[in-house]
Amino acid sequence: MSAKAVNTGLSDAQIASALDAFRAVVGRDHVLVGESAAEFRDPFWYRDWAQYDASAVVQPATLEEVQAIVRLADEQGVPLWTTSQGRNNGYGGSSPRVQGSVVMNLRRMKRILDIDEKLGYAVVEPGVSWTDLYEAITEQGYRLMLTIPDLGWGSVVGNALDHGITYMPYGADFQAPCGLEVVLANGELLRTGMGAMENNKSWHLYRRGLGPTLDPLFMQSNFGVVVKMGVWLMPWPETFAPIWLNAPKETDLIPIIDTVRELRLDRTLEGVPRLYNTLVFASLMEQRTRWYDGDGPTPDHIIDKIASDLGFGRWVMSMALWEDSAIADYKIAKVKAAFEQIPGVDVRFNKYAPEEIPALTNHSDRVLGGVPAQEWNNILRWYGTDAGAHLGNGLVAPLVGSEAFRLHSLIRGVVEREMGMDYFASPMVINARSLVHACGAIWDISSEEDTRRSYEGCKAIVREAANAGFGEYRAHLDYMDLAASTYSFGDHAYQRFLEKVKDAVDPNGILSPGKQSIWPAAYRDGGALEA
Amino acid sequence: MSAKAVNTGLSDAQIASALDAFRAVVGRDHVLVGESAAEFRDPFWYRDWAQYDASAVVQPATLEEVQAIVRLADEQGVPLWTTSQGRNNGYGGSSPRVQGSVVMNLRRMKRILDIDEKLGYAVVEPGVSWTDLYEAITEQGYRLMLTIPDLGWGSVVGNALDHGITYMPYGADFQAPCGLEVVLANGELLRTGMGAMENNKSWHLYRRGLGPTLDPLFMQSNFGVVVKMGVWLMPWPETFAPIWLNAPKETDLIPIIDTVRELRLDRTLEGVPRLYNTLVFASLMEQRTRWYDGDGPTPDHIIDKIASDLGFGRWVMSMALWEDSAIADYKIAKVKAAFEQIPGVDVRFNKYAPEEIPALTNHSDRVLGGVPAQEWNNILRWYGTDAGAHLGNGLVAPLVGSEAFRLHSLIRGVVEREMGMDYFASPMVINARSLVHACGAIWDISSEEDTRRSYEGCKAIVREAANAGFGEYRAHLDYMDLAASTYSFGDHAYQRFLEKVKDAVDPNGILSPGKQSIWPAAYRDGGALEA
Repeated sequence: MSAKAVNTGLSDAQIASALDAFRAVVGRDHVLVGESAAEFRDPFWYRDWAQYDASAVVQPATLEEVQAIVRLADEQGVPLWTTSQGRNNGYGGSSPRVQGSVVMNLRRMKRILDIDEKLGYAVVEPGVSWTDLYEAITEQGYRLMLTIPDLGWGSVVGNALDHGITYMPYGADFQAPCGLEVVLANGELLRTGMGAMENNKSWHLYRRGLGPTLDPLFMQSNFGVVVKMGVWLMPWPETFAPIWLNAPKETDLIPIIDTVRELRLDRTLEGVPRLYNTLVFASLMEQRTRWYDGDGPTPDHIIDKIASDLGFGRWVMSMALWEDSAIADYKIAKVKAAFEQIPGVDVRFNKYAPEEIPALTNHSDRVLGGVPAQEWNNILRWYGTDAGAHLGNGLVAPLVGSEAFRLHSLIRGVVEREMGMDYFASPMVINARSLVHACGAIWDISSEEDTRRSYEGCKAIVREAANAGFGEYRAHLDYMDLAASTYSFGDHAYQRFLEKVKDAVDPNGILSPGKQSIWPAAYRDGGALEA
Repeated sequence: MSAKAVNTGLSDAQIASALDAFRAVVGRDHVLVGESAAEFRDPFWYRDWAQYDASAVVQPATLEEVQAIVRLADEQGVPLWTTSQGRNNGYGGSSPRVQGSVVMNLRRMKRILDIDEKLGYAVVEPGVSWTDLYEAITEQGYRLMLTIPDLGWGSVVGNALDHGITYMPYGADFQAPCGLEVVLANGELLRTGMGAMENNKSWHLYRRGLGPTLDPLFMQSNFGVVVKMGVWLMPWPETFAPIWLNAPKETDLIPIIDTVRELRLDRTLEGVPRLYNTLVFASLMEQRTRWYDGDGPTPDHIIDKIASDLGFGRWVMSMALWEDSAIADYKIAKVKAAFEQIPGVDVRFNKYAPEEIPALTNHSDRVLGGVPAQEWNNILRWYGTDAGAHLGNGLVAPLVGSEAFRLHSLIRGVVEREMGMDYFASPMVINARSLVHACGAIWDISSEEDTRRSYEGCKAIVREAANAGFGEYRAHLDYMDLAASTYSFGDHAYQRFLEKVKDAVDPNGILSPGKQSIWPAAYRDGGALEA
């Protein structure tokens, strides 16, 4: 049912010996075991299930400490599962794929090495959170904006490495990261792009180098440990104009997507417009019991009641403009006219100066304006529990209304049938041609049965979506192998290519084995791939 | 002086045997040797210099033929140097790095597999030229624009694979290509991104997949043979507005670059604005003898005379807007006001409907409007010869006026001192933070001495630019190794990483050995890396 448990194959004595060696590098206080390591366990995995439990957490504070840890791990054959902040919640948090791995958490590497106002970029270590970087920019008085995700506590680097989505113009197609410094499995240091030349000032400015571009190869993979990254910052626009759309019917998804495609293709809209179905949006502000406390999915007529009570429809869409004021006025009128051709759809907007964004009451407006927030965690309270968990899928679809609705309906069916839970959907318009349909479940993590149903339901989504031609963009530890197995063209040519690269650059297989189902040779021989 | 000659190590009999096997796959007419293969030799390499001569040219017409050729080459250890149209002039044309390699030219793979007007993309084989695709779009009446380079005869795929620059919005940061099909060294077929899932419709729409993104790994490399590529097309804007700037002084480069950075960062300008120095622009329309026929570089006072006679200054900049008419009007006024703060700078513009672009007389305007042209070849007539050649460097610099001028001055010095020739410079604003300073020489290829001086001068540029912290984005066969050697951070960690990948995915080293200085193990042991 769960992915096959895979162990390091190391004895307790071998692990203990490695931890002693790690302590000699980072100091005793920075190797965490037992209760002190508990916060690095996936918070949304059932407490009694041990297959993704780590042996320990090691927290190096410097590049040199990372290199020393990696070299020791390579010598001793100890798998290191690298996390940055370790906030990859919904995908496994900081837990490793291979039971007994040592988590190398980089939260202590918190240096912001540069912020360049003129050229609009920063250089950060993996422990720098969205909030850290936002505050540093603000404290210096730089008129720069950072494209951010919903939750400010995560790592700027970690999010980029997991293909995490952000919403401003540089969020489209993940354009913010530029130029990496990477520790390889043998402890050597590699710089990508122009950084491969000593003293080259274009490392974080030009997206490539001479020869093939490696930045994307180190994302969603396990070929190296990224210890430094450039991130592009956008200059403050004259005007920030968040725009909200409400649509009454579930099928309105079709014309909304077709309209947003045209506005995105002609560059009227930029960034990542994002839809919420009624239940996602309601969960941000209220609890389910206000309307319904039955088992199973909330019935449609209740969903309509929720939409009506809260003053929105079956879909809400949030987007924004970052423009000169005159252009914003022109585009607002165009966007409003385009969407309001859909019967019942209502478009509202506001215009703000960038200085006003931190005081905005709507958290989504703040996020679109680059001011970190934590309100997204409110969704965990939907079932009225303090132990809310969430889990999801993110499926890629063409930016065509009929395709988006086909995928949405398919997944709603699986969630309601297989999980018997409320269906949360939030399609994100990742570029002018495709969307990521984020969707999933919220449940009480103290219930083993609900936890099991949620994971099984998400796996059913992976399978049924793949059968219909839709692929995952990111997957939880427990179905990484399953999701990867659906990318099977050419007898799994993509996966086999990655395995060759893995064996070549990490011959002892110590860097995050199993991450995105990239398994080193030793694990492949052991049959770890069953899902 | 030249890069070390490297031979295949195969006997004539071994090559003959391989060619017989290739003939059995593609037919006798599609294995070219001797004179019939002459057009695939680098036209800008001196006729008597043989170190980049191929044994033969094989031209498969289908994917299956490519797979068969690659499998035979792998079995027999015959290096295949893959080219698409083979128009990579200035960088080696269709010539191989390793003498005696067989050129696998894909000009016969000319299928345009899809053009999707709604989602704005096409899918093409490597033999499809810019002109072919433009004509297909036009014939179907699709209101879509293709971002193109200066010369229409090249391959859409080949240009992308060599990091070739185009000028429209999707030209910035090379955003047009999306989704590759690749034949690996063992003949297997791999699809990148969402294409790794069978029947996934987002292959050419979403830029990534699940796991690391491989598209950029197959560009400027030799890890596979790309046989199919998606390319994004932009919907027709209401208005196409080319904008031209003239600046009187050489030092005006500084405020021009600082101004374009601000307009590019705030997204007033998109695409790839491009500067020409006086001599580049003059060479497009006139010959040198109109003003000067002395040896050595044209003196400054003559350059001023040329600028004055032709009605422009020491710099011309060409850029454009692709917008709704109202936005174009607003932006034109803003752009004009910004640049005209620079004393002596003059900004002119025009507005056209997309239908009008094919009839425009200025070829640069047509290119910015996506209509393929061939006029760029006019520069070869500068010295009044029918045997003009060009060779160049493309150096990346931060988009900061002082840095751009430092690089420009450094290179002008090298060209005039080492080559004793006219200096041609055309900086291209590749994104909002960096530029590619394209520069180089034009000479008469019938002169061995001038050819030698040109290549030696370009190598001096590579060395001196690297000493000053500027790296090449692309290099001719003859200084690929030299240019790659300047990316030496971490004891050449980047290059050694690529070598590990190369040995893993092409263990017999048959795919374009030496391309971008990625040498398979057998050649590394043989000491091929001396430059």
